[in-house]
Parts: sequence; C-alpha cells; structure tokens
Amino acid sequence: MLVFVLNAGSSSLKYQLIDAKTSEVKASGIVERIGIDGVLKHEIGNNRKLTFEAHIQTHKEAIELILQTLTHDDTKIIDSIDEIDAIGHRVAHGGEYFKNSVVVDDEVIKKIEELIPLAPLHNPANILGMKICRELMPNTPNVAVFDTAFHQTMPEVHFLFPVPHEDYTEHHLRKYGFHGTSHYYVSNEAIKLLENKKDLRIIVCHLGNGSSVCAVRDGKSLNTTMGLTPLGGLMMGTRSGDIDPGIIPYLMEKKNMDTHQIIDYLNKKSGILGVSGISSDLRDIISAAKDGDQRAQVTIDMMCNRVKKYICSYAGLLGGVDALCFTAGIGENSDLIREKVCHNLEFMGIEIDKDKNSSKESKVKEISKDSSKTKIFVIPTNEELVIAQDTYKLVG
Amino acid sequence: MLVFVLNAGSSSLKYQLIDAKTSEVKASGIVERIGIDGVLKHEIGNNRKLTFEAHIQTHKEAIELILQTLTHDDTKIIDSIDEIDAIGHRVAHGGEYFKNSVVVDDEVIKKIEELIPLAPLHNPANILGMKICRELMPNTPNVAVFDTAFHQTMPEVHFLFPVPHEDYTEHHLRKYGFHGTSHYYVSNEAIKLLENKKDLRIIVCHLGNGSSVCAVRDGKSLNTTMGLTPLGGLMMGTRSGDIDPGIIPYLMEKKNMDTHQIIDYLNKKSGILGVSGISSDLRDIISAAKDGDQRAQVTIDMMCNRVKKYICSYAGLLGGVDALCFTAGIGENSDLIREKVCHNLEFMGIEIDKDKNSSKESKVKEISKDSSKTKIFVIPTNEELVIAQDTYKLVG
Repeated sequence: MLVFVLNAGSSSLKYQLIDAKTSEVKASGIVERIGIDGVLKHEIGNNRKLTFEAHIQTHKEAIELILQTLTHDDTKIIDSIDEIDAIGHRVAHGGEYFKNSVVVDDEVIKKIEELIPLAPLHNPANILGMKICRELMPNTPNVAVFDTAFHQTMPEVHFLFPVPHEDYTEHHLRKYGFHGTSHYYVSNEAIKLLENKKDLRIIVCHLGNGSSVCAVRDGKSLNTTMGLTPLGGLMMGTRSGDIDPGIIPYLMEKKNMDTHQIIDYLNKKSGILGVSGISSDLRDIISAAKDGDQRAQVTIDMMCNRVKKYICSYAGLLGGVDALCFTAGIGENSDLIREKVCHNLEFMGIEIDKDKNSSKESKVKEISKDSSKTKIFVIPTNEELVIAQDTYKLVG
Repeated sequence: MLVFVLNAGSSSLKYQLIDAKTSEVKASGIVERIGIDGVLKHEIGNNRKLTFEAHIQTHKEAIELILQTLTHDDTKIIDSIDEIDAIGHRVAHGGEYFKNSVVVDDEVIKKIEELIPLAPLHNPANILGMKICRELMPNTPNVAVFDTAFHQTMPEVHFLFPVPHEDYTEHHLRKYGFHGTSHYYVSNEAIKLLENKKDLRIIVCHLGNGSSVCAVRDGKSLNTTMGLTPLGGLMMGTRSGDIDPGIIPYLMEKKNMDTHQIIDYLNKKSGILGVSGISSDLRDIISAAKDGDQRAQVTIDMMCNRVKKYICSYAGLLGGVDALCFTAGIGENSDLIREKVCHNLEFMGIEIDKDKNSSKESKVKEISKDSSKTKIFVIPTNEELVIAQDTYKLVG
C-alpha cells in the first residue's frame, strides 16, 4: 500500500512516498520558493539526495515534477504513478467539522473552503494540493488528515475563551489547537512504551519553530496551548504566544501601526527573534548565550519558563503525570532546553537524569531517573507516518 | 499618628482614617458616582453607618465633605483637620520610577503624570486627590503608595514580554503587575504565620472582581499574572485575561468593531460575565450553577482552572510551595472556589482540609490538612493598613 503524503503550503510542498504497511519511506522531499526560483530537493530512501533548480512557478508544476521524479528512469521508485494507491493530505484546519481523517470528496473540499477564515494562509494551499492531485491522478483516492482533529476531544471548559458565549455559538470562536497529528503520534508512542496501561496522563511538548504543549488523558487531547490561531500559547521562534491584550492598543499608538500590522508583528517579529534581536533559531541563541550574550540567556530562560509553566499547569489539570514527552526540532535535539524545562520539578515527581538526557545513543529514549514518578521521554515525531496510516485505514 | 488613607478613582473616592500605631480604623467610607448623584457612605468605627445623598459634583467637594464629616459635631472623630498627621494615597501606576512608597512633592507628581499613558483611568484621579489634599491641608505631608511597587523586584526574565526588545527600552512595554499592596500584605502575614523563616516560597491568590496571582520568594515578588495593564492574566469578573492575540482581528471582522472597541469588550463584557451571560459577580454564578445552569458551571470551572494553572505554574517556578494564600472578595469568602482550585494537587504536596476550609470561625485561618507539605491560608487583605503604615514610616 503506497501512500503519497502531501503537505502543501502557500509557497512550498513537502512530500513522502511511504509504504503504509511497513512504514518504509521510499522517497521524500520538498519544493521550496514556488513562484520565485522553485527548487526541488528530493531524497531516495535514506541514500541519494538530489537537487533540481527547476524554476517551478506553480503548485501544479511542482506536483508534476515530483511525480516525474518518482517515475523517471534515473531516479525511479515506481514504474508508473498508478502504483500510488492513495494520497494523504495534511490539512491545517478542520474546524468543528472534522474530528477524524476523511476521504476527500466535493463536500469535504467545500467544508475545508468554509474554514478558510480560520486558517487563511494554510487551508487554500491544502485545497489546491487536493484539486491538483485529483486532476493528475483521477483514479487515486485522497484522504484529508487535519492538524486540529486530535484536539476535538477537548471539553468545553478548555476550548472556550473567556469572552461572551455568542462569539462561540455565532462565530465559532474557540480554541482549536494545532500540531494534533504530532501530539497524537508522540502520546501514542508513549502509551506503547508504558505497556498500554489505561487512563495514562501524558504531557507532550512539541518544541520547534512553532511550539505547543498538549495534555493527553487516556489517549485523548484534554487541553493544548495553541488557540484559535497558531499565535496562541507558548513563546515561539517569531511568535509571541498568549499575551495581555492591553498591549495591543498601547503598541499601536507607540509604533503607529494598525491592528493587522501589530498581529503581523506578534506573528513574525516577536518571540525568540524579538527578545534576542539575533535569530528565530534557538541554536543561534544558545550559541550566543555561550559566548556571554546576556540577552540571549534571558531569551532562553523566557522560552523555557513558558514551557515549564504549561507542564506544571497541565500536571495540575491531570492530577499528576505518568509521562512527559519531548518532540520536534528543539524537543528532540536540545538536551539543554529539556534540562532547563525540567529543573526544580522534583517536588512534583519529575526528575530528569542528566546523563541519559545528554546521551546521543538512540533517537527514542527515556531520560528520567529511576526514582522519577514521571517517565520522561524523547520521541521523534512522525506526522507523515500518521497521515499514511490514516490513509491506509480509510482506503486500504 | 492619624493617617487619612485616600483611594481616588475616576468617579469615586474610598477613604479610611487610621491610627497607624494601633491599626485602629477610626472612620471609613466611600463617595460614589461623583458628578452624577454623588452619595457619601460614612462609617464611624465599626458602629455607626451614615449615608449622605449630597449630590457631590467634584472630587474637591467630595474631600471637603469627608473632612467636614470627620470634624462635625454630630459625627466627630477629630476636633480639627489639623489632627490628621499625614495623608496616604493609593496610586495605581508607579512605572519603573517607584519601587517603594514616597513622600509626595512636585517632582513625584510630575512623574506620576508621565505615567498616565500606562494607567489612563487611574493615575489622573490619583493626582487630583493629591492636589486637592495639598490645597485643603497645606501643612500635612502626603505619601504615595503604588499598586505596582511590590512587583518591581521581578527579574527581567519574568517582566519582559515576548516581543521585540526595543518595545521595552523605548516604550516601557513590560509586565508591571498590580494588587501589589495586597500581595505584599498577605504574603507578609503568611511569613509571620510561618515564624519568619527565611527564603519562604509563597503564592498569593488575590481573587476579587479583579484578580491576580503572585509568586513571592523570600518576601519579594518574583512573578505575577497581570501585565502591562490589569487586563492580563486570569479570567476576571468582566475581563478576559491573557488570550491568543489572533482572536482580536478575527473578532474585529466578525463583530465590525475597531481595536479600541474590542479591548473595551475584553475589559468590560468578557470574563465571568461574558461566558455565563448572567453576571460578573461570582456569587450569582455559583447560585445559578446550584440551580442547574450548565453554562454557569462551565464558567466556574473555567475561572478555577485558570487560577489553578497559575498556582501550578508558580509552584514550578518556586520549586515547591511553603504557603498558598487566598485573599480578597472571592478568595476570602468562597470555600467552594478554594476547594475547586486545590482539587487534585496532592501530587505536588497541596492538600486542602474540607472541614477547615468551610469553617466560619475566624477570618484568618489555616485550611490545609496536617499532612500537607504546603500550608494553605485564608488571609483577609488590608491595603489601607499598609498605606497607613508606609505613610507612618516615611513621615511619622
């Protein structure tokens, strides 16, 4: 069962060709800067890496080039695109319509279109990806996997905002949460590591350029930090996260900006980039802090404090934690950040083992002390695999 | 040492005449609806309550009437206003200028004026109160006690917002925090109850119509929930608290409001009032929930979850908690809310005793189980006493 997994953004396309039964990644790649210089970076298995400077102008050209590369004599993975059994699409926003993945039909596309106001940058690109695949491979089924779906189990007390109730009933204003596929994958892996015990209380920290924390009870999302939009919750690479809304009119006046400019400023110029004044990439900040940059150190401390704040908050919500998991770029790779985030939490049963934490031996690892009530895990996320497996379940 | 304590708002004046040495309240009262129907409610000691429907039009008329009432034959507390030794003013915002209370002079008033953009409703009324007192009692010293001063010990990592650093250096955008006098008073009383041990880790929950939580280490504010403005942090009577800023442009479009209208909406129509659709007074919501109103129950749960979130977050920051204190209208009076907020926190050493919690025997009480690592206290706040004592320290 070969699944072509597609993650279509506004000017980029990420993809994998996965055998959904064996989990083997046959090929993967990314097209970046569509409409500018349109470069395709393609990888076959774990070995051959190819770069095509193709000046790709549209998403359709991009998908055509990917399919050609998969079947071309020099780079062949499959003889024909007919060997692709199904296509799995990552979709940003499923609103309250989609609590699970679905087979794509006209009605599904219509609903994803209706949700564009909630994800104005992402849903249009996702729809475009589906339409192109239906055109180029008319006999191959498409499945939509939503980044919000996992969080649809959140109860009202956690998804409502503290604003007038009609904003929810009339305008769908609520917390949706994102990174759902990642939180699902990582919490599910943790459940397996804990021998599939019932009613487990798990906290997943997805820390990358975008970041969120999720409280998972008995395999279901109970609460998460992102809100109506991916600007909510934690301080991120360039995003502020939740703030005192009183800041907005104050900044508008001081900086002579309108609301949309301020929101753009909070999305693109704030967070780690804004506080440090150096970069949105935490690796640059850690390096600067090592060189004695005081503001870089403050940036790291601010970022870690906010992660810790939500870990403690969700621990309280769950009444204790069986597993605390770290994933995504920062979560998987930075032992420094994991150590700082767990620092001083012994009183609530969270004890990190410094040696295990800094070990590079394996990608999946347990990094808690034997005495720790909470198991602490590093689990690399794999959203593409979930998309391939969901696609297989629905059309296999 | 008789101190006249004055809390001047935009259309109201609260006052007490306190003997700063003995803490005895000689008289107290409030003038409400200045400029509308201007009613004075005056109380002598704990006994006589008087109401004057005086149609007071200005703050000056209000202060003159209070001073007349204090000295008038029928209601006499003092023979002459010369017996007032000093006046202590509650001032909303001291910015970064004022880390402690100060004797008022022209320079101090100028600085409080400079801070008006940070507290546009409150600082002008506070200044007016000072100017009137200096005019009516030219030989009596005035002291300013700032609601922000206690939080000036917060380190940079807690007071900076995750936005570009120049917003702090150029525009003074930072977390200031409020309710400082209350957090100081309550944490200081808790320190006394814990026999003045060193380096105590205390969390104060000031829960009233406005609410905030404060983490206090070794007597100093380490972090607090309110931000640049009193709209930040917890969900309150009519205020939303911190939110995903992405909500703002979404609501502006859906409700056809401008930014200032949305901020007003988040200040005055949101929080407990907005979610419940019933009232901003939690007592009404608790009563409705008892009668089976489902949305009232959700409102209570949302409010309690947010208090709990910050308790757990600050517990993590402090590495454990020696004392958790409840104060102000809701914190002092609602055993239900205290119980819900402490529910399920046994894993971090916080164990509430239901019987002690619901006892009405004394106002100051310990409500934790004997086995609880964290002592839980109810401590009625007394901001006026702090103002009187600070005034006495400076000019006594």
